Amino acid sequence: MVRRNDERRAALVDAAIEVLAREGARGLTFRAVDTEAAVPPGTASNYFANRDALLTQAGARVYERLQPDEETIARQRAGTPDRETYAALMRELVGRVSGFRTGYLALLELRLEATRRPQLRAVLTERVRADLDANVAYHEQSGLPGDATAVRLIYLALNWLIVEQLTLPEVLSEAERERLVTAAVERIVEA
Amino acid sequence: MVRRNDERRAALVDAAIEVLAREGARGLTFRAVDTEAAVPPGTASNYFANRDALLTQAGARVYERLQPDEETIARQRAGTPDRETYAALMRELVGRVSGFRTGYLALLELRLEATRRPQLRAVLTERVRADLDANVAYHEQSGLPGDATAVRLIYLALNWLIVEQLTLPEVLSEAERERLVTAAVERIVEA
Repeated sequence: MVRRNDERRAALVDAAIEVLAREGARGLTFRAVDTEAAVPPGTASNYFANRDALLTQAGARVYERLQPDEETIARQRAGTPDRETYAALMRELVGRVSGFRTGYLALLELRLEATRRPQLRAVLTERVRADLDANVAYHEQSGLPGDATAVRLIYLALNWLIVEQLTLPEVLSEAERERLVTAAVERIVEA
Repeated sequence: MVRRNDERRAALVDAAIEVLAREGARGLTFRAVDTEAAVPPGTASNYFANRDALLTQAGARVYERLQPDEETIARQRAGTPDRETYAALMRELVGRVSGFRTGYLALLELRLEATRRPQLRAVLTERVRADLDANVAYHEQSGLPGDATAVRLIYLALNWLIVEQLTLPEVLSEAERERLVTAAVERIVEA
């Protein structure tokens, strides 16, 4: 029974991500989540104490779903730790993140909603900081070239590249985006 | 009379920016704009054919208000065209853009709304592309070091830096943000 509840909760949170991306933070109601998850009206409100709980769990779930799988991590560790491998990893990362289009758009909605909700802001701040620290730590133990400043600068550039791609996809062509990812690593990571 | 209409239109568009930042794209109604501008109900609907017109004019107005004034441009042109000047200009740019907090947040709301409204997406795509081209052209005639790729990479990194600052201001401290702007120019612009 606990397992079934966990599965249903995860399904509701996934439904919340889709609603956030499609309707915006203001469109995220328990009712909309019930409809999206195709469950009886009133289900979501049984699983989440309030809207803040639903919003923060949706944010955490996006990060969870964006983690690379074991196979990807193993493949990454097998590469020669040089700038070319770093650039290839970053192109893969951009592909993975932008491939979960609704997840990334939901995170942007949550960031904007966080300007209005201090509790959500506190939770997201912790999450983003932990993610950034994990990126730096993962990079350090990978043996790839580049310091913590390089990791942060690449994080900044790639995030906005993904914003461009997902919100105004015709500003930069796919080929230009690929070139920019490679150039970011080549220039920011000192040889 | 035409002049007075122009002033009122500008005031309504400015009010729309505030509503967008505070309430999100879904909260942007003619009624909300009338209230924000403190004009009689029905005024905004006399000035804009529909919501799309209001949204696109709000976007254009943010870009207009973000332009540097003559004094700033003159001061910029007076500097020695080296990386230090470039970094100083970028710190100033980040300060100017993030200083118009509601304008930048309104643009983010418009980008998310553009994923749902093809007409708005077309107008914003043109605007952002023109802005990016203008940045490259301005840079080329400035004599500052760095090529078009550098301008684009710095544009990417600084935009997300501003997103961090405006949505989750505690992820990076002000000192860290300043250091990152300087490091972005130092590393991306080849010496």
